[in-house]
Amino acid sequence: MTFVPSQRGTSAPASPIRRLTPYADRAKQRGLEVLHLNIGQPDVATPRTVIAAYHSFEDKVLAYGASEGSLAYRQALAGYYNDLGAARGGPAISPADIVVTTGGSEALLFAIAATCDPGDELLVAEPYYPNYQGFAYLLSVQIKPVTTYGAEGFALSAEQVEAALGPRTKAIVLSSPGNPTGAVLSSAQLRAIGDVCLRRGVYFICDEVYRDFVYDEAIREGGSTSPSVLTQPGLAECAIMVDSVSKRYSACGARVGCLVTRNAAIRAAIVKFAQARLSPPVVDMLAAQAALATPASELAAVTAEYKRRRDALVAGLSTIAGVSARTPQGAFYLVVQLPVDDAERFCIFLLEQFDLDGATVMLAPADGFYATPGLGKQEVRAAYVLEVAKLQRSCEILRAALQAYPGTLK
Amino acid sequence: MTFVPSQRGTSAPASPIRRLTPYADRAKQRGLEVLHLNIGQPDVATPRTVIAAYHSFEDKVLAYGASEGSLAYRQALAGYYNDLGAARGGPAISPADIVVTTGGSEALLFAIAATCDPGDELLVAEPYYPNYQGFAYLLSVQIKPVTTYGAEGFALSAEQVEAALGPRTKAIVLSSPGNPTGAVLSSAQLRAIGDVCLRRGVYFICDEVYRDFVYDEAIREGGSTSPSVLTQPGLAECAIMVDSVSKRYSACGARVGCLVTRNAAIRAAIVKFAQARLSPPVVDMLAAQAALATPASELAAVTAEYKRRRDALVAGLSTIAGVSARTPQGAFYLVVQLPVDDAERFCIFLLEQFDLDGATVMLAPADGFYATPGLGKQEVRAAYVLEVAKLQRSCEILRAALQAYPGTLK
Repeated sequence: MTFVPSQRGTSAPASPIRRLTPYADRAKQRGLEVLHLNIGQPDVATPRTVIAAYHSFEDKVLAYGASEGSLAYRQALAGYYNDLGAARGGPAISPADIVVTTGGSEALLFAIAATCDPGDELLVAEPYYPNYQGFAYLLSVQIKPVTTYGAEGFALSAEQVEAALGPRTKAIVLSSPGNPTGAVLSSAQLRAIGDVCLRRGVYFICDEVYRDFVYDEAIREGGSTSPSVLTQPGLAECAIMVDSVSKRYSACGARVGCLVTRNAAIRAAIVKFAQARLSPPVVDMLAAQAALATPASELAAVTAEYKRRRDALVAGLSTIAGVSARTPQGAFYLVVQLPVDDAERFCIFLLEQFDLDGATVMLAPADGFYATPGLGKQEVRAAYVLEVAKLQRSCEILRAALQAYPGTLK
Repeated sequence: MTFVPSQRGTSAPASPIRRLTPYADRAKQRGLEVLHLNIGQPDVATPRTVIAAYHSFEDKVLAYGASEGSLAYRQALAGYYNDLGAARGGPAISPADIVVTTGGSEALLFAIAATCDPGDELLVAEPYYPNYQGFAYLLSVQIKPVTTYGAEGFALSAEQVEAALGPRTKAIVLSSPGNPTGAVLSSAQLRAIGDVCLRRGVYFICDEVYRDFVYDEAIREGGSTSPSVLTQPGLAECAIMVDSVSKRYSACGARVGCLVTRNAAIRAAIVKFAQARLSPPVVDMLAAQAALATPASELAAVTAEYKRRRDALVAGLSTIAGVSARTPQGAFYLVVQLPVDDAERFCIFLLEQFDLDGATVMLAPADGFYATPGLGKQEVRAAYVLEVAKLQRSCEILRAALQAYPGTLK
């Protein structure tokens, strides 16, 4: 007998963010410095309160936590969402509306599973966060893309969404601020898309893990964050908000996120999934709770630093012939158009055959951020998670690499 | 439009281990002490080395870990499995054979997803660990049960397995030592079942999280643990071993487990699933690595303590009229037959309407441990994770409750 994996295991794509990692490992083995613009791993220090929470764990038994997350943490989270203005969008958020998850990743997995059955469609706006596709494969759900374009600031209209809905479309998942686009949905756009969802019986899963990283004063809500689906009136039945401590508190390794919805039936389904995996990591949940006490000034300083980085990267790229990237409004990613035959080949060239004074750059080929075959072949995603000087060096490396690369279009 | 969850979200069962929790919470609110025999949450102290690992985490940035787990931890785990005798079953285990997961739970989820598509069958031996069903629902996989019986020590033969295989059966998942049965598969049984799997092209997912908890010298392998599927020759293609630090090191809240297989295609599929969720919890992974240094004498003392508990609980139950339970060989559970009309009703009675000197007992109704409707209605699962005196008190409470309960069969 032959032993082959399941269809979903065979056909699932490798992560475009991580699939070139073996090339990077080999470059490092050759002694090169690799500047990682491929992954949204901030270099910003994790708040001391978070690290201190690990240090102060003194339980005799490291026991299971509650499947839906500890009541204390859910109470604290409810306060945080209500401070964001959730009461504008319906009843104030209560701890019962919240399920704590193992990272935003698990919140996405549970949200898709609770809304879509095998063969159902999940709408995305491409370029999109490719792990949505990873979860869709795991759950045998089909990704249906709506294409957005860099030249239009990756804008997404409610009309585009509505036109793409089919009889098997059960949910739409959008990140705002957007990964990889940096686009931020305004309150009006969230409401317009939400109204389509309500009218058509489609769930609106809104991935808000970059909420704090928004650089345009005009679209900030409550003074500091991007608009949330939770604060839009009338969407209680269809809205499922996904969140994470990873980016906000530079605590990616904690693997703590959550999911908030006022739809009790969806919550009940998700709690059953949560019970099957017993509990989120317990000490990390305490650390996540401690993170909520991070002073707003500390978070604001981080956002200001990312704004400097964004501006430095956009400025640096703008001086390279043939390269173009629009200034994004939020998150910490940039979709960059490159004058090359094939962006993946160029990314591998950077890691395998190129260095500038002993350093090279790792980028994420953008084709994996599109569900439509053929798109993104001349684009990469760059994360501006390194300090300004390193981003400037990265631009110099890119400039030189494009001169050296045989597939650069003249 | 109405907003209802997906089929898998609606039809998934609530965990029989946790579904009575609201009753227990109310009992505690009334001031009662609740003795938790419902859940496998050990009261044994977590090794100090594990707690110390949390205390010594000093990275500036709590960054993502590797999706498949850190190389250092996988190297340490490979050493552990090779010390168990994995080389008897094929090539020595290498770090590349191992994927670190968020608890054994995620290892099970990934193993089922990598082997079964929607509508495929996953064979279990009932009574079984009910979260297998939770993961099966999440993945739209069908559970197919083979029934085993307390009067036969919950024995499972290769013939029973083979007779139950159908054209859509892609995998079998067994826990050994068994939850909830306490039954331990001998090397000969593992090989016999594995041979059927090989012959019929079915994956053998072996859940060995209770490996250390085996009380019968005769079936211990390597002096201290239950036989592992990894050490049986010839099963490299079909065997997928699931493990966890939760029980072995009394670190359930760490949520670190792993999956080991020599089947490269299965591993490749699972690494893609692992990449989608980015990484296991990072500080917990360090704690899990530290746990491997726990002295064998400390683990042996814990096993000896569980043996005392097992014996105390079995002895205590044997003095209650109408109650029967066979002495289990391993794990720390007991399937107990009760002289009642309906075990769930009795469990609720215990929490809602009964106490003995201010204390009561929480048990897990066993019907949720069977996939066949109607089975387990007069059985409960009891976990002997409390100290002997509390187990003895639990027996007194049970004796008195059976006298007071209106549905006790005379």
